Amino acid sequence: MEFSSKLLEKAVDEMSQLPGVGKRTALRLVLHLLGQPKENTLQLAEALSTMRNDIKFCKNCNNISDTDLCEICSNPNRVEDVICVVEDIRDVMAIENTSSFKGLYHVLGGKISPMDGVGPNDLNIEPLVQKAREGKIKELIFALGSTMEGDTTNFYIYKQIQEFNITTSTIARGISVGNELEYTDEITLGRSIINRIPFETSLKS
Amino acid sequence: MEFSSKLLEKAVDEMSQLPGVGKRTALRLVLHLLGQPKENTLQLAEALSTMRNDIKFCKNCNNISDTDLCEICSNPNRVEDVICVVEDIRDVMAIENTSSFKGLYHVLGGKISPMDGVGPNDLNIEPLVQKAREGKIKELIFALGSTMEGDTTNFYIYKQIQEFNITTSTIARGISVGNELEYTDEITLGRSIINRIPFETSLKS
Repeated sequence: MEFSSKLLEKAVDEMSQLPGVGKRTALRLVLHLLGQPKENTLQLAEALSTMRNDIKFCKNCNNISDTDLCEICSNPNRVEDVICVVEDIRDVMAIENTSSFKGLYHVLGGKISPMDGVGPNDLNIEPLVQKAREGKIKELIFALGSTMEGDTTNFYIYKQIQEFNITTSTIARGISVGNELEYTDEITLGRSIINRIPFETSLKS
Repeated sequence: MEFSSKLLEKAVDEMSQLPGVGKRTALRLVLHLLGQPKENTLQLAEALSTMRNDIKFCKNCNNISDTDLCEICSNPNRVEDVICVVEDIRDVMAIENTSSFKGLYHVLGGKISPMDGVGPNDLNIEPLVQKAREGKIKELIFALGSTMEGDTTNFYIYKQIQEFNITTSTIARGISVGNELEYTDEITLGRSIINRIPFETSLKS
């Protein structure tokens, strides 16, 4: 693409570095901004740079936060020794929305994925093992996505903390509420039969 | 969505004002930026605000430019009295890529569209009529998209400049090069028969 303006070209180049945004989409977005009042663009730019400069990660759980200790970790009503291992802030938000968990989180910042060049040392795993070593964890809940990378990460962490007498669990895999059996994939359905739960338990939830 | 960080929330809110970007996509984009070196985000923010603050519109054709007169309008080799009417810079770039046009452009900045609240006065039409009145235009080529709004805008401008003895044309509508007849819509095919061109002419292009 040849641009009549270097400023426009630079803006489009920068925008097109976002994931899923090509040159054409970037041009569309930038032209949209040009058609809006100047303040909109300046506010967007300001919000992005302030966010990147000032944002913090919670010392305890590594979640994104405005303070040294995030709201969840600093809440005295949460159960401190039950820890849910998640990939990133989106998972924290999703679980918080269910109001079904009263413990704390531990945000890994990704999953082990050799294909993408992400090894255990690139993730926030060591502080979790350290907590386990210090006897601060009673139960650990693995809540990573049910993929090869998620399972690998779960297993890696499990091996690291195995010796510390911690109850471990993973969130249940099974048929989504409201789904028909016939549309469920075979692996999920097969596992949901093997890992069946007592009927009385299912009545309570 | 409830965010654990006001800074993050603000950035997501601003990003989600871009067309086609919802809250979830905005969060994904912002988390991507957080995973990248700080410079990337700052450069993006800088490029956007500089672009919005410093960009100019060419005095003559209203195209986006870094100078008062754009590169095309200031090029002495272009034919000054043949003017191609287009919607925005993307159309200029598309036509320039063909190397088939040696005249100047006139960028309207949109199309007349009552549904979107865009009337003739919101567009850059008056300067074009003024040029016509001053006898600066020999030929006017309408190159707007072939939609209801495009046709309306063409007709509106045509009525305004009708009295000034200007040759007017629109870019040809017809079957795309390489297309089979059976997949062409009826209106295009019908028009392409009515507006057929001499075979000798078609050999030259």
